Amino acid sequence: MTTQQLVDQIWKKKSFLCIGLDVDLTKIPAYLLEEEDPIFEFNKRIIEATQHLAVAYKPNTAFYEAYGIKGWKSLEKTIQYLNTNYPEIFTIADAKRGDIGNTSAMYAKAFFEDMEFDSVTVAPYMGKDSVEPFLTFEGKHTIMLALTSNQGAFDFQTKSIEGKEVYKHVLETSKSWKHSENLMYVVGATKAEYFADIRKIVPNSFLLVPGVGAQGGNLQEVCKFGLTDQIGLLINSSRGIIYASNGTDFDTVAAKKAAELQRQMAVILDAKKV
Amino acid sequence: MTTQQLVDQIWKKKSFLCIGLDVDLTKIPAYLLEEEDPIFEFNKRIIEATQHLAVAYKPNTAFYEAYGIKGWKSLEKTIQYLNTNYPEIFTIADAKRGDIGNTSAMYAKAFFEDMEFDSVTVAPYMGKDSVEPFLTFEGKHTIMLALTSNQGAFDFQTKSIEGKEVYKHVLETSKSWKHSENLMYVVGATKAEYFADIRKIVPNSFLLVPGVGAQGGNLQEVCKFGLTDQIGLLINSSRGIIYASNGTDFDTVAAKKAAELQRQMAVILDAKKV
Repeated sequence: MTTQQLVDQIWKKKSFLCIGLDVDLTKIPAYLLEEEDPIFEFNKRIIEATQHLAVAYKPNTAFYEAYGIKGWKSLEKTIQYLNTNYPEIFTIADAKRGDIGNTSAMYAKAFFEDMEFDSVTVAPYMGKDSVEPFLTFEGKHTIMLALTSNQGAFDFQTKSIEGKEVYKHVLETSKSWKHSENLMYVVGATKAEYFADIRKIVPNSFLLVPGVGAQGGNLQEVCKFGLTDQIGLLINSSRGIIYASNGTDFDTVAAKKAAELQRQMAVILDAKKV
Repeated sequence: MTTQQLVDQIWKKKSFLCIGLDVDLTKIPAYLLEEEDPIFEFNKRIIEATQHLAVAYKPNTAFYEAYGIKGWKSLEKTIQYLNTNYPEIFTIADAKRGDIGNTSAMYAKAFFEDMEFDSVTVAPYMGKDSVEPFLTFEGKHTIMLALTSNQGAFDFQTKSIEGKEVYKHVLETSKSWKHSENLMYVVGATKAEYFADIRKIVPNSFLLVPGVGAQGGNLQEVCKFGLTDQIGLLINSSRGIIYASNGTDFDTVAAKKAAELQRQMAVILDAKKV
């Protein structure tokens, strides 16, 4: 998928919402456990209920790997379901991979070619040759961790290298990599003012933003500093949407929570258009 | 497995060799492709031929994921084979994972509980709460990237935070984490003199060392600076051993290459004992 196709979808749906499909069998409605593939069944119903409100879905691979081969099958079925029924939707394998060159190439093959995800998240610690193998795939996007939304982000990411925080160094350095036009970045919503600085370094890149709650906490703040002419933001919500109810109404309640965020996004997009 | 059990095995086998099981179907002997599970068949024969020479095996998960569910099955069969037949051998899931707390916990469950690996490699970029969930498992080891052996290591890892390189900062910070006694570190063999500095920070921790060729290039140098009273080193070789031949003799040639390294290690260990 091209970036332009993603932007077109955002305007059409008036949404830049990404829904995280982090399926934990201890948290989904108990009656689904009787299904042959509860994880896929859960995802399918969430997707059916929210596909008009979201422009992207992001399964985190950890939740699938935790169930071994069964989980891996559920992941494959989920991405196939999305690609077959909603090919316009942007898909993200939240895998946070990164290894030496030939090994990263194997990961890229797994997520881009075999499973046909539109994008994959990667970790920057091993540098250029661990990320570039992902960037060579045309029409695919590599979403690199820059500033994450967890407490541990302050352990290394915000430390200063020669007067510049590690995450800024990561952003700047990556711009010189081959096919860096295929890069997007993970930037947590923890502190909205960070976005002003980040936009000075990557003025046009798409940013995947975790850490915005179902209640839309600092959505306005993040948009104030992070929005670009081509939108440039994908706001992710996982647990706040998919676990809003664990009754038989879980999908409609999820849709309600997604709609709350989508409506706020529509207001922001409408204001931008004027 | 406890660290002491690993050390005992090292003295018994006079080896601190780890063999990387990075199985690429385009590189293994063509006749194996006729087997029902060529990856597992390859691993089994490599293990059978080298298990008396190596104290650890390290499948890199990328190579298995690249083959989807079939690959995942081959990985499960490989670890089961090792745990059943050679429970004294230390097993490493080279996965380089790392995510926010609850997600890292899912990865830890997958590798430690479901597949019963003794250890897993993790990336440090997301900090404390992305690694600590791995450290809570008793008798399991978490091998964190510190200084990797690829060119990209110089992009961020060797940059200086307040006069101290990022990788040293990573080593030092991690020592304060809960259950840090379960940490080991990845340190590439690219520059042996780094080991002297690293030993000042983590004098006793086990280091997993990639980047030593089948010819044993700088093994002596690495040991000179990196060896501890409890050995503290696992030297990894992957391609130099497992792809030394792609004929029907691949396993015996792999054993020959492994034995070359093991003999050098025996000399080093014998010298230490005296």
